[in-house]
Amino acid sequence: MTDPANESDRQQREPEGVAPRPSRRALLGWGGAGLALGAAAAGGTVAALRSGTEAVPAGMSGAAVPFHGAHQAGIASAVQDRLHFAAFDVTTKDRAALVRLLKDWTRAAERMTAGLPVGEGAVGGLPEAPPDDTGEALGLKPNRLTLTIGFGPGLFAKDRFGLEDRRPEALVDLEQFPGDNLDPARSGGDLCVQACADDPQVAVHAIRQLARIGFGKTAMRWSQLGFGKTSSTTPDQQTPRNMMGFKDGTRNISGTDTAALDRHVWVGGGDGADWMTGGSYLVARRIRMHIETWDRTPLQEQEDIFGRDKAEGAPVGKPKEHDAPFLKAMKPDAHVRLAHPDSNDGATILRRGYSFTDGTDGLGRLDAGLFFLAYQRDVRKGFVRIQRALSKNDSLNEYIQHVGSAVFAVPPGVRDTDDWWGRTLFV
Amino acid sequence: MTDPANESDRQQREPEGVAPRPSRRALLGWGGAGLALGAAAAGGTVAALRSGTEAVPAGMSGAAVPFHGAHQAGIASAVQDRLHFAAFDVTTKDRAALVRLLKDWTRAAERMTAGLPVGEGAVGGLPEAPPDDTGEALGLKPNRLTLTIGFGPGLFAKDRFGLEDRRPEALVDLEQFPGDNLDPARSGGDLCVQACADDPQVAVHAIRQLARIGFGKTAMRWSQLGFGKTSSTTPDQQTPRNMMGFKDGTRNISGTDTAALDRHVWVGGGDGADWMTGGSYLVARRIRMHIETWDRTPLQEQEDIFGRDKAEGAPVGKPKEHDAPFLKAMKPDAHVRLAHPDSNDGATILRRGYSFTDGTDGLGRLDAGLFFLAYQRDVRKGFVRIQRALSKNDSLNEYIQHVGSAVFAVPPGVRDTDDWWGRTLFV
Repeated sequence: MTDPANESDRQQREPEGVAPRPSRRALLGWGGAGLALGAAAAGGTVAALRSGTEAVPAGMSGAAVPFHGAHQAGIASAVQDRLHFAAFDVTTKDRAALVRLLKDWTRAAERMTAGLPVGEGAVGGLPEAPPDDTGEALGLKPNRLTLTIGFGPGLFAKDRFGLEDRRPEALVDLEQFPGDNLDPARSGGDLCVQACADDPQVAVHAIRQLARIGFGKTAMRWSQLGFGKTSSTTPDQQTPRNMMGFKDGTRNISGTDTAALDRHVWVGGGDGADWMTGGSYLVARRIRMHIETWDRTPLQEQEDIFGRDKAEGAPVGKPKEHDAPFLKAMKPDAHVRLAHPDSNDGATILRRGYSFTDGTDGLGRLDAGLFFLAYQRDVRKGFVRIQRALSKNDSLNEYIQHVGSAVFAVPPGVRDTDDWWGRTLFV
Repeated sequence: MTDPANESDRQQREPEGVAPRPSRRALLGWGGAGLALGAAAAGGTVAALRSGTEAVPAGMSGAAVPFHGAHQAGIASAVQDRLHFAAFDVTTKDRAALVRLLKDWTRAAERMTAGLPVGEGAVGGLPEAPPDDTGEALGLKPNRLTLTIGFGPGLFAKDRFGLEDRRPEALVDLEQFPGDNLDPARSGGDLCVQACADDPQVAVHAIRQLARIGFGKTAMRWSQLGFGKTSSTTPDQQTPRNMMGFKDGTRNISGTDTAALDRHVWVGGGDGADWMTGGSYLVARRIRMHIETWDRTPLQEQEDIFGRDKAEGAPVGKPKEHDAPFLKAMKPDAHVRLAHPDSNDGATILRRGYSFTDGTDGLGRLDAGLFFLAYQRDVRKGFVRIQRALSKNDSLNEYIQHVGSAVFAVPPGVRDTDDWWGRTLFV
């Protein structure tokens, strides 16, 4: 049952741009007098949320991240602890059906990111229909859930949805880099949704609802659970460690550095493909680590390979993690040196990767590594430039292999409850 | 570097039987004057911790759970949020080598559950050797990590380790139940380790260290990540929901109900196989859910199948979740009715399962479901009795399939820093 007192509580804004935290349980009354979607969308929580580059204060992990704004949330937003990422094939050939799906997904995403179930009753209001939310996130707070959509190259294919002239030049098909061993079943996709949250149940629930809503129009092509973040966009907090035991993303773009975001992440008005203004480009790579081999490598060699020490994370020759690296002090094939903007004509990407472990392979080795996610203003000037250098020379290559790959155009944010994911592309 | 002030802090006990929370980062000084293992084991944190049936207060999720005690932690302990479970084949044929491994694992488990890295330097103290901790949990708190070991039937095989006469009768090979579709690559194992923690990085790290230490003596056979608990042993707290959206484990054995634990979970002195006194038996089943089919089933049908309502979790005809179920009000093939002790000669098990999602299968369906873990005093009187009823008649069977299975004898707890996992079996 909906408690009117709670309802009015939720319309009050908390100070730092963070929405209050309704409990999903408090809001749901299956079979009772539930909160109507229309009411929530028009005047309640959903409409009150604005996205952008607001920092989420530490310890607010139950909170909601605003969904609406000039940019999609889940890029500059403070990185949440867990990830569920899904890539979909579009199975419908009907452009109108695809547009309808994107609208339905947007409305569902608004609700879920606010901590609400997709709906309060049965699909279409019919008693014999299945519930319009599968329920496993009931009682859980929003947990900073963000849902971020991307459009893959296939969507712009000729004779498909009439979008062939709208494909941005910056959305290139990635070349085959040296060492790539890509599994087609873990690569590509017409659409992607990145779900990040501090509780994985919330992220998994969200992807599942979108898959359910998309039934008959999309099919899930692959998905990836990430159990721990490896990059932070809040450099004042503790830098997370990757599965090699090293701090990762020390010099990542900060989610509050609007100048750097405008320069390296958000697509600008003069970049071509106007519909992408305020959007970004996402490269996803499933990077398997040869954990067992790495674990038998001496510490000094590990540190030489990265170009940082392991305990503190300080660059070679410097005492502190956040000291500026002196690249020439590192070995020529050190990872940090090769990946640094100074080695790549200034190429800078915003990293948002997660560690994964998916059981064992047939040889008794952990199938584990880094699910790499990077956002940039132009794939050609970001990931491609850096990966060309790394794939040729990085001494880390002995211990890793890229086994999945995808690239997506991530459209601008949804402005309000009348707007929808991809409107600028389709209208 | 070790700070002597912190060191003395850590020796103070907090009131509720919960150990203080050292930061792994504070304790580690790779290349510096680290805390010696011997010192920690003799007088510090590690020796100060006692396991048993203590309840961990809510909100203490950074805390350590005592490792030592009459019973292994991770059974009656308050269920942590995340799981990494691994089954190993023993590859050595040398009984002494296996015993040495179990001792090494115990020492590592003592340290990791206390929030310490496995070691402070390189393996064997050699500068050219790899680090003796892989490092990805540095800076993280213990997060209530528990490590629980089990011995599979294969360990007792003839002409292997001389243990054929010590196999408990209660450790039966599970029969093939109707509907089972077991994948050998996800079943069985000579050893298992259940790692539970509130941070998955801590659980994954712990399993990896044990795998690394076991190199050349064991090989990982399979492993399973669980992203969300589905059963609680603290009935006063919120009951978690499984991937079908229903509350699970409402009437689970409470971790503080010593009478119920003694009756249904812990092996008693007169049960045969004296070395198991204080131990338990674990059944692990990977239960795939046909999510997409379930999600298209009407709410009323879902509730009839379970025998509880979805929102509140109340049994049929009752208003509240924790009301005693009236079985005859449920359909004869309702899940709760068939699984209830009254329908199974009193059979009662302690459930500790986790939801999983491992990407998609080849047909675009989520590979998701329940990784079921149940502890009991005798497998024949616990899981087998219940599963015979469920596998024949449960209306839930249309939506699930058991695809992995294993059974383990879980030895009693490690009493102190001289004791080790499995001593009562081998000595």
